[in-house]
Amino acid sequence: MSPEAAADLDLVSLFNAVIEQAVPAMHGLGIRVAELCPGHVVATAPLAGNSNHMGTLYAGTLFGLGEMLGGALFASGFDVERFYPTVKDVQIRFLRPARSDVRAEASLSDAELDRLRVESERNGKAEFVLEATITDAAGTVVATTLGTYQIRRNQS
Amino acid sequence: MSPEAAADLDLVSLFNAVIEQAVPAMHGLGIRVAELCPGHVVATAPLAGNSNHMGTLYAGTLFGLGEMLGGALFASGFDVERFYPTVKDVQIRFLRPARSDVRAEASLSDAELDRLRVESERNGKAEFVLEATITDAAGTVVATTLGTYQIRRNQS
Repeated sequence: MSPEAAADLDLVSLFNAVIEQAVPAMHGLGIRVAELCPGHVVATAPLAGNSNHMGTLYAGTLFGLGEMLGGALFASGFDVERFYPTVKDVQIRFLRPARSDVRAEASLSDAELDRLRVESERNGKAEFVLEATITDAAGTVVATTLGTYQIRRNQS
Repeated sequence: MSPEAAADLDLVSLFNAVIEQAVPAMHGLGIRVAELCPGHVVATAPLAGNSNHMGTLYAGTLFGLGEMLGGALFASGFDVERFYPTVKDVQIRFLRPARSDVRAEASLSDAELDRLRVESERNGKAEFVLEATITDAAGTVVATTLGTYQIRRNQS
């Protein structure tokens, strides 16, 4: 394993452990980061425990999976001691029923990460918009999300 | 207690019991219907078990609370043996941090219920848009949701 891959694995384990403590309801939905490096995240959620009245994946879990990508991308690329992420709004479109475990993926470009670092240092906050897709085990897009997030400097 | 109030109470108990079985992840978030009669629903979620990294209410639980209102309104006014509800999309705006238990409320007019009954019988499906507000214990609006739902006839 390369040093970079080992560092990414550590970040995945650390992120999931922090979520288990800090946002137990999200952890309880089975939402987990699977890959995380600066500007790129993959997360998953299982059908087991998340089925709805139609036997497909519960809308709230699909939402939680899409929504957390912004927080994970923040954690991957910013000083988590001095800043924290919040979500302002999210639109989720349910395109197909999900009948398997699901996977969500999102990215921020290097230029966007640079902009956010500069703006958050200068203004104490910075905003970004994130598009994401959620796919089932066959790779079919079951939902898309469009979220607006804010990075804010801690008051203390 | 009037017969109408008793019937509404029975519908509340029945709806929450069905959700516990059919959508256990939603039940696990502590989301409960508190009032339910044809065209009107109130639902709640607790801060306990739902706090996030800022000590405020987890975005996924706020979403789940807003999203389920469409399903509850369906259950309050339609033949649940012959039709079922699905959600097509939801936009949620997070306006203020929620630092208490929360409450969501939504309504459909009698005219809208009539339209949906006629259309779903005639076409096998009908669509409705639902605006909802989520408030904290002080009555402050912490989030708003705008959801599009579909009522569909069972295939069997």
